[in-house]
Amino acid sequence: MSWYLTPAAQPNEAVYSAALAHQLTLTKPPGALGALETVAVRFAAMQGVIHPSLNKIAISIFAADHGVAAQGVSAFPQAVTTEMVKNFANGGAAISVLARHLGARFEVVNLGTLFDVPEHEQIVDVAIAQGTADFSQGPAMTPEQLEEALYQGQQAAFRAKHDEAELFIGGEMGIGNTTSASALAAARLGLPAASLVGPGTGLASEQLPHKAYVIEQSLEANPVAEPTSQLQALGGFEIAGLVGAYIACAQLRIPVLVDGFISSAAALMAVAINPSIKPWLLYSHESAEPGHQTILAELDADPLLNIGMRLGEGSGAAVVVTLMQQALALHNEMATFEQAQVSEKTES
Amino acid sequence: MSWYLTPAAQPNEAVYSAALAHQLTLTKPPGALGALETVAVRFAAMQGVIHPSLNKIAISIFAADHGVAAQGVSAFPQAVTTEMVKNFANGGAAISVLARHLGARFEVVNLGTLFDVPEHEQIVDVAIAQGTADFSQGPAMTPEQLEEALYQGQQAAFRAKHDEAELFIGGEMGIGNTTSASALAAARLGLPAASLVGPGTGLASEQLPHKAYVIEQSLEANPVAEPTSQLQALGGFEIAGLVGAYIACAQLRIPVLVDGFISSAAALMAVAINPSIKPWLLYSHESAEPGHQTILAELDADPLLNIGMRLGEGSGAAVVVTLMQQALALHNEMATFEQAQVSEKTES
Repeated sequence: MSWYLTPAAQPNEAVYSAALAHQLTLTKPPGALGALETVAVRFAAMQGVIHPSLNKIAISIFAADHGVAAQGVSAFPQAVTTEMVKNFANGGAAISVLARHLGARFEVVNLGTLFDVPEHEQIVDVAIAQGTADFSQGPAMTPEQLEEALYQGQQAAFRAKHDEAELFIGGEMGIGNTTSASALAAARLGLPAASLVGPGTGLASEQLPHKAYVIEQSLEANPVAEPTSQLQALGGFEIAGLVGAYIACAQLRIPVLVDGFISSAAALMAVAINPSIKPWLLYSHESAEPGHQTILAELDADPLLNIGMRLGEGSGAAVVVTLMQQALALHNEMATFEQAQVSEKTES
Repeated sequence: MSWYLTPAAQPNEAVYSAALAHQLTLTKPPGALGALETVAVRFAAMQGVIHPSLNKIAISIFAADHGVAAQGVSAFPQAVTTEMVKNFANGGAAISVLARHLGARFEVVNLGTLFDVPEHEQIVDVAIAQGTADFSQGPAMTPEQLEEALYQGQQAAFRAKHDEAELFIGGEMGIGNTTSASALAAARLGLPAASLVGPGTGLASEQLPHKAYVIEQSLEANPVAEPTSQLQALGGFEIAGLVGAYIACAQLRIPVLVDGFISSAAALMAVAINPSIKPWLLYSHESAEPGHQTILAELDADPLLNIGMRLGEGSGAAVVVTLMQQALALHNEMATFEQAQVSEKTES
C-alpha cells in the first residue's frame, strides 16, 4: 500500500471535551470569543493537551511550472515562477515577510520550474521536470512523477516534524496553477469549469470563458475518476507536493493551516485520497477567487478570515497564525470565574 | 464652543496617494492582499508617512453601571461590572491577556460602577455616580454628567498621546450596555428597537421582546433629536467616555480601532456630534450582535474580521491589531518588482 493511504490517528476526543469544558469556566459569556474558542479547542485536541502551544511554525512553499500555461490562461509570463522562487529566498515576497515576523521555519521546494533556480540555503531543489505537460492535451504527469511529487511533500512534513513544528503551512507558486486547481475541483466535484474559474493573478474577465474552455477540454482529454488519477492528470507538481505534505503532516500529528484557493484544491484532493486526514486541516481564509467558496463548502471548512486576499504563497494562512496564537493565549491565560471571583450568569 | 465640536484635521491625501502607488510596485498582483492593502494605505495617510509604524498601542477600558439594568435586560447581575474591573486590572480578562501580548499601554477608567473599585495602578477611578439613572423613566444623565464623561474620554486620549500611542482602542464594560447602545442606535437611525436588539451577554431569545419594549419605552420617555441630547438621555457613562475618547483621538491625530457593537454605537454618536472625525476610525470586526451590521453600514465601515465575537472589552479590536501590524509589515518590507527583478503583468 502506498504511504499516503495509511490512515492518520485522530485528534484526542477526551482532550477536546476537557478543553471545551475549560472554555466554559473562563470569565466571559459562553461562546463570546466566537471562532477563537473553536480554534483553541480543536488545536488542544490535535496537540493532545488541554493547554496547547503554538510557537514553532513550519512553512514550505512548493513551486513548479505548468504546461497548460501555453494555452494563455494567466496574466503573468511563466518566468515569474522562477523569479518568485528567488524573491521568496531573498526575503522580498509577502510570505517571506510574514514568515520572518512569525519566526517560522521557511523553505522553498522547487518541484519543477521552467528555469533553473540558484543554490540557496532556503531552497530545496528537487525539480522533477521543467514543468508539467500541457494537460489540455493529455495527463500533466507520469505516474512516477506524481509519486515523486507526493514523496517530496512527505519529505517537507518530515523536516517540519524534525524541527518540532506545531503547525504546518504549505504555500504554492506556479504561473497557471489556478487553472490546474479549478480543473481538479471541477473533476472532483463534477461541476462545470465555468463555476470554478476566476481571475487568478489578474486575468481580465473577458478571458475567463477561454480559461473555462481550456479546462473543459482538459477534462475531456483526461477522463479519469480516481483522485490520484485526477491529480496525475490535472495537477501541478506543487499541488501534488501540497497533497503529500498535508497527508504526511496528519500522519505525523502536525496540524495544518490551509491557505487559499489552490491550497484548498490540494486539500480537496488529499482528503479524497485519504479521508482520515480531514480533522487535521484548519482553514485560514476565504479568498477572492470565486470558486474557493465551493471547495470550502465541500470540505466543511469555516475559515477565520475573508478580506479579499488572493495571493497564494501561503500568505493568507501566515496572516491567520497570529489569530490562532491569540486564541490559544486567551484559552491558556484567562482567569476562571472562580479564580477572579466573578458572578456567573443569572438563571432565567 | 465645546471642545468636542472642534474639527479634526484630515489624514494626509498626498501620502495616501503615494502609499497607494507604492503598493502597486510590490511583488504581487495588484490588490492581491485585499483589505490588508487598504489598511496599510489608510494608516499611512493618518500617520502622514508612506511607511507607517504600529508598535505602541493604547487601550482604555471604560466601565460604568446602568440604571436601566433594573428593567431585567441582562443575563448577568450588575455586580459583574465591578468584578470585571478587578479582573481587567488583575490580568485575567480577555482584554488583559490580549493587551499583555501586544505590549499595550493598558488602563481601566471607572466612570461609575455600582460598587467601589480598589486602588490599582491600572485603574483610573473617576466615578461620576453609582451608575446612570434608569433611562426608561427619563434621561440617563444630567448635562453636567455627560460633559464629565466626555471629558474623561478626552483625558484618556491625552494619556495615550503622551505615551506616543500609534493606535487607540477603547473598550467598555457595563452590565446593561447593549440596551443603551441599541437605544442610541434606534434613536439615531430612526429604526424600531426590535431591529437593533440582540442577546448581549446571553439573554434568552424569549426575553428579547421585553428588551425591545424597554427601549421603545425609553425612546418615548426621552423625545430628543440632537446627538448630544440623545447621548445624555440614553447613553451610559462608559459609552460617553468612548465618544469623548474617539473625538479627542481624531483631534490629536491618533488612529482609532473601533471594537464591536457598543463601541460602534459610540462611534455612531461621535461621528454625529463631530463628522470631521470619521476618517480616523478604523473598524475591527463585525460582532454576533444582530444590530451591529446596521450600525456598521451607517458608518460605511468595512471591518476586517467576522468570527462571531461578542465580548466587548475592546477584545475584538485587540485581536485585529496583529492583522494591521502584518498589513504594515507587508507594505513596508516587501520587495518591489524592480528590486526583485520580477516580470510584471503581461499586457492583454
